[in-house]
Amino acid sequence: MSEQNIARILLDGHGGDGAPDVVLDALKQTITSSSTKAKFGVCGLVEILEPALKARGLSDQVEIVPSAEFIEMTDAPAIAVRRKKQSSIHVGARAVRDGDWDALVSAGNTGALMAISKLILKTLPGIDRPALASMIPAVDGGTFFLDIGANVDCSSDHLVQLAVMGSCYLQAAEGVENPRVGLLNIGTEEGKGTDVIKVAAPRLQESSLNFIGNVEGTDLFSDRVDVVVCDGFVGNVALKTMEGVADLILGTLKKELTSSLAAKAGALLSRKALKRVKTALSPSEHNGAPLLGLNGIVVKSHGGADVRGYACAIEVAIREVEAGLIERTIEAMNIMAEGQ
Amino acid sequence: MSEQNIARILLDGHGGDGAPDVVLDALKQTITSSSTKAKFGVCGLVEILEPALKARGLSDQVEIVPSAEFIEMTDAPAIAVRRKKQSSIHVGARAVRDGDWDALVSAGNTGALMAISKLILKTLPGIDRPALASMIPAVDGGTFFLDIGANVDCSSDHLVQLAVMGSCYLQAAEGVENPRVGLLNIGTEEGKGTDVIKVAAPRLQESSLNFIGNVEGTDLFSDRVDVVVCDGFVGNVALKTMEGVADLILGTLKKELTSSLAAKAGALLSRKALKRVKTALSPSEHNGAPLLGLNGIVVKSHGGADVRGYACAIEVAIREVEAGLIERTIEAMNIMAEGQ
Repeated sequence: MSEQNIARILLDGHGGDGAPDVVLDALKQTITSSSTKAKFGVCGLVEILEPALKARGLSDQVEIVPSAEFIEMTDAPAIAVRRKKQSSIHVGARAVRDGDWDALVSAGNTGALMAISKLILKTLPGIDRPALASMIPAVDGGTFFLDIGANVDCSSDHLVQLAVMGSCYLQAAEGVENPRVGLLNIGTEEGKGTDVIKVAAPRLQESSLNFIGNVEGTDLFSDRVDVVVCDGFVGNVALKTMEGVADLILGTLKKELTSSLAAKAGALLSRKALKRVKTALSPSEHNGAPLLGLNGIVVKSHGGADVRGYACAIEVAIREVEAGLIERTIEAMNIMAEGQ
Repeated sequence: MSEQNIARILLDGHGGDGAPDVVLDALKQTITSSSTKAKFGVCGLVEILEPALKARGLSDQVEIVPSAEFIEMTDAPAIAVRRKKQSSIHVGARAVRDGDWDALVSAGNTGALMAISKLILKTLPGIDRPALASMIPAVDGGTFFLDIGANVDCSSDHLVQLAVMGSCYLQAAEGVENPRVGLLNIGTEEGKGTDVIKVAAPRLQESSLNFIGNVEGTDLFSDRVDVVVCDGFVGNVALKTMEGVADLILGTLKKELTSSLAAKAGALLSRKALKRVKTALSPSEHNGAPLLGLNGIVVKSHGGADVRGYACAIEVAIREVEAGLIERTIEAMNIMAEGQ
């Protein structure tokens, strides 16, 4: 943070379906409606960003960090990382590395954002690979779920590191004291699952984390657990399965509720209730997937996020900075290393 | 099948939450309401089954296959397999192996049913391990999903075998011509995912199966694919995630729809529509998880299945027998072996 203890948040002006409009509208919403004292910047092509900021009356409040190019959604991440070194993500990550800004928020290509952030910011001591995480809806508000796709194969070491990262994040960004950590498995009994899990479980049991043991897919949405850890393949499949089921149910509901006059009238009367259900399950409510384990704060917004969703991602970045997520994670990894 | 081409279906009279009542009520429903010519038997303790059949007026139509004991839901599968050799599942599997019956249906402990069936019936030529599969709801009616928990770790060979088993099942039991087979992955592009998947994908591409490539979690519920293949860890997590989300959505909906007078009135008017949504997503509608790859037909009913759900499992067994699933799978495995 700056010397005045003010979080300095840099937004990627490109990337995502509605950039730069969604990005800047969300920024304007954050500046006008929240009590944050954070300082904001937007990174990208000046000729695009300057008039867009002016049109929103934000020219005086928001700094432009110029970049010569940007990564398009159609660019292959591996190639974009090497060939577009003056992209807004590259420039933004370097600005965070150099201490000019505290956090980067981007709705750009996840693979490229992850690879560039890792390359430029590096990982924290004791952490082999960064992780991608998401808050998913649950009966008690939400469950923090990681890894959701950054690491296809995970060793027992990686699972333990994910548990530390997830626990630190919930404490720092959401203020959850002593978060309950579970390992995603195919049964709750000890000794279930893959060899990797069987080695990770006792290590977590002996650690200072609040490890509650194995949890199942159903527990993700319950009030049993706060942080659920798995490898990125399983996490990605679970997350997309969740989206698929939600779409199927809400789609079926919509069809059924317009099938007869009585149902239509019913739908009309219960419209507010149905809308609240949709909002509770909406990814934009839970937008802002933090990239964890990096020596710098990076938050990924969903590429299709609306203004409200992108504003959530900005809020996540502010909370991570203000709560000192990086310092907390370094400390927790030290405690973990001493205990082993 | 018997010489008269009549399917002979043996039900496990024990196992499951409501046995033997649910089992026998479902059997009665099948006998009275369906046009099946199948012959039925129930396997288990005579002193329990005899009066229960009599009370339902089924004594003359249903044969009792006596067993000396049965496996309780609290028995550890590994121990039950070895110590309870006169259990209803053991006796039933032996009766199928010896050709006295064509199929065994059980709502008992999944682990025990799988282990005993494998031990007694063995796998088909070319198939290393049996699989557990399930039909899950989708916009086009359903997607056949395997493995859902029998095999935690799968090699590329296993994934290919699962694809053959799933494709044969859909053709035989559901009459789907040339089912579209997909590999569950974290992206649809070639070269995504684990090493195991990267090896399995080109082999499926070259096979005679209708392989459409990688699919994602969201595709499970779409009309893009008929059979989705993954290892048992991923499948089990996806299935339980699906259940968890559905419960969360329907629970939230219920709460919201009783929150105000207008919503209550709305819920009343749309009651039929909401009920249809629930039915469409109900596991009992899709009950009957076939154990595939065995040299004999075994169908697992959900332990908590109601009469309607258990009756679905009986129907699945009848269709598998009548369509010659075993012979079809042997033939498909031969074609696969010749092509390699």
